[in-house]
Amino acid sequence: MSLEVAVIGAGSWGTALASVFADNGHRVHLWMRNPKQAEEVNTRHVNEKYLPDVRLSENIVASTDLQEVVHGKPVVLLAVPSHAMRAVTRELSPHLHPEVLLIHATKGFEMESLKRMSEVIAEEVSPAVAEGLVVLSGPSHAEEVILRSPTTVVVTSASEDRMLRAQVLLMNSYFRVYTNPDLIGAELAGALKNIIALGAGMSDGLGFGDNAKAALLTRGLAEITRLGVKLGAMPLTFAGLAGIGDLVVTCTSKHSRNWRAGYLLGQGKPLDEVLEQMGMVVEGVRTTNAAYALASREEVSMPITTVLYRILFEGTSPRQGVEELMGRGRTRENEYLGPYHT
Amino acid sequence: MSLEVAVIGAGSWGTALASVFADNGHRVHLWMRNPKQAEEVNTRHVNEKYLPDVRLSENIVASTDLQEVVHGKPVVLLAVPSHAMRAVTRELSPHLHPEVLLIHATKGFEMESLKRMSEVIAEEVSPAVAEGLVVLSGPSHAEEVILRSPTTVVVTSASEDRMLRAQVLLMNSYFRVYTNPDLIGAELAGALKNIIALGAGMSDGLGFGDNAKAALLTRGLAEITRLGVKLGAMPLTFAGLAGIGDLVVTCTSKHSRNWRAGYLLGQGKPLDEVLEQMGMVVEGVRTTNAAYALASREEVSMPITTVLYRILFEGTSPRQGVEELMGRGRTRENEYLGPYHT
Repeated sequence: MSLEVAVIGAGSWGTALASVFADNGHRVHLWMRNPKQAEEVNTRHVNEKYLPDVRLSENIVASTDLQEVVHGKPVVLLAVPSHAMRAVTRELSPHLHPEVLLIHATKGFEMESLKRMSEVIAEEVSPAVAEGLVVLSGPSHAEEVILRSPTTVVVTSASEDRMLRAQVLLMNSYFRVYTNPDLIGAELAGALKNIIALGAGMSDGLGFGDNAKAALLTRGLAEITRLGVKLGAMPLTFAGLAGIGDLVVTCTSKHSRNWRAGYLLGQGKPLDEVLEQMGMVVEGVRTTNAAYALASREEVSMPITTVLYRILFEGTSPRQGVEELMGRGRTRENEYLGPYHT
Repeated sequence: MSLEVAVIGAGSWGTALASVFADNGHRVHLWMRNPKQAEEVNTRHVNEKYLPDVRLSENIVASTDLQEVVHGKPVVLLAVPSHAMRAVTRELSPHLHPEVLLIHATKGFEMESLKRMSEVIAEEVSPAVAEGLVVLSGPSHAEEVILRSPTTVVVTSASEDRMLRAQVLLMNSYFRVYTNPDLIGAELAGALKNIIALGAGMSDGLGFGDNAKAALLTRGLAEITRLGVKLGAMPLTFAGLAGIGDLVVTCTSKHSRNWRAGYLLGQGKPLDEVLEQMGMVVEGVRTTNAAYALASREEVSMPITTVLYRILFEGTSPRQGVEELMGRGRTRENEYLGPYHT
């Protein structure tokens, strides 16, 4: 069945997801702010700024009119940056169909409130829409999805029905969609993984080897899991696509901004110089700040996050930070052994 | 306290662990078969074949006399290849001190019996020694450990006391040791991860991207976890150092033989040609065989392992294999949600 789908946000990820919908036979209304960009999509079928060299489906129609794009559509997918989520959702909320299948695919926190994206959205839409909200996450470079390279993601929702509908709508031969009922875990894993990407880059910048990087990744996963469980997540979600899957993509890709920023810090560059050189937001830096605040509030031990926070904001040198981590007392690997714990 | 420690097997991993013991102030008796190699260690303090360019501690003394090396020692660490474990253990067993702290650091199965290393060892030593056996695993290239690059590993045992003793003996400023009571999980994760490394290499060889590799890694982890749980492991152990940690090191390192073999297969080379070109055992190929047999015996669904088995032994092309994997029915991410499962 062909549906009218609204995709809000035409960055690389929104555009790639619009293409998945179009490949699945749906008609996509893609919202963006920039009229020139919209015209490009509608006439030349290209999103020059974010995904040049790829010709988009003619079933993707761009518009700068948020109300028109959203109004009455049975499916609306949000793919705007985390800092814009509240304002955009507030603006479109009155135009949502009461039975809309609302999906968001944005990673990160609202920085001031430390809220997850679904919490932000829930405050701006009706309770019925909020309850059926679906979150999409997982290891998915938009640049590969748009080329139809094999990709797996996870969808999650408090509503099993909505979760399954999203899975059916999005899944195809190159885009494999798994379900997981743990919405909190999927959102937290996707947001918190940036900290570890930063740490992995720093380890490489310090000249350490594969062992150190694997240690950072695994022990980083353990501590973001610890925070996640305290906040209501299921531990194994962090071992899934939204957690370890996304983490591996982020930590091993040299294109990752977080990895790159960490690498420069590891080489001894001060933070302000690194941020200037990057010329854009480094999500891992903001997330370290957020996670440090959450860890304090929730009284959860997060040694890697704490050390990164000190390196970023309190002048600890990266090498000193590593020594602190390696010099900690003896401990066990895992406190969540699930039903098999003896 | 300085102890007399026996390390059995002077490949790169045995030699690196001997160095950790020596750095921690213990006197190490390192057993190897080759008299020329032993003389090199004793006179020039170098293990030319496995770790050239590194000068070993003078506290490491080599010998080819297994009885002499093992006799009465309070600590014995086994680091022989998996196929040699039974014969070596049988030979040294009569000389073990009844209160010995016995540790093994070998990954893999006994191929004929599909038994884990600790099961093999338990059949060759006294019940008291078997019960206190400690397993050491985790993401640890020997080449980095010997250079004192930061490394984390996990030790596990049915005996909490032995596990903690092994942790104390091995831990230092560059070698961080965590405990985990799940011996079965740690052994299975360490052995089964080679399958996924092979698959990751194949994905790269086919020219797929980071998304596909992350998918293979995460979904591969899910299926080895599924088999592990059926065999008595705890699921979260697979998300720890012996599982995901080791997997990341193996899958992302271009030095990995398993990755390399998979890469060549992905490029369309037939198995016999690949094995000839590699010129040595590819553990992932043997492990795929073992896991396929275990999955059949235990009736556990392992789609990636099954596809790899077909590619390796039944002539399925890698591309066809990927299509089979991506074309499977819709499913959920995870069946082990632990105590938080709703």
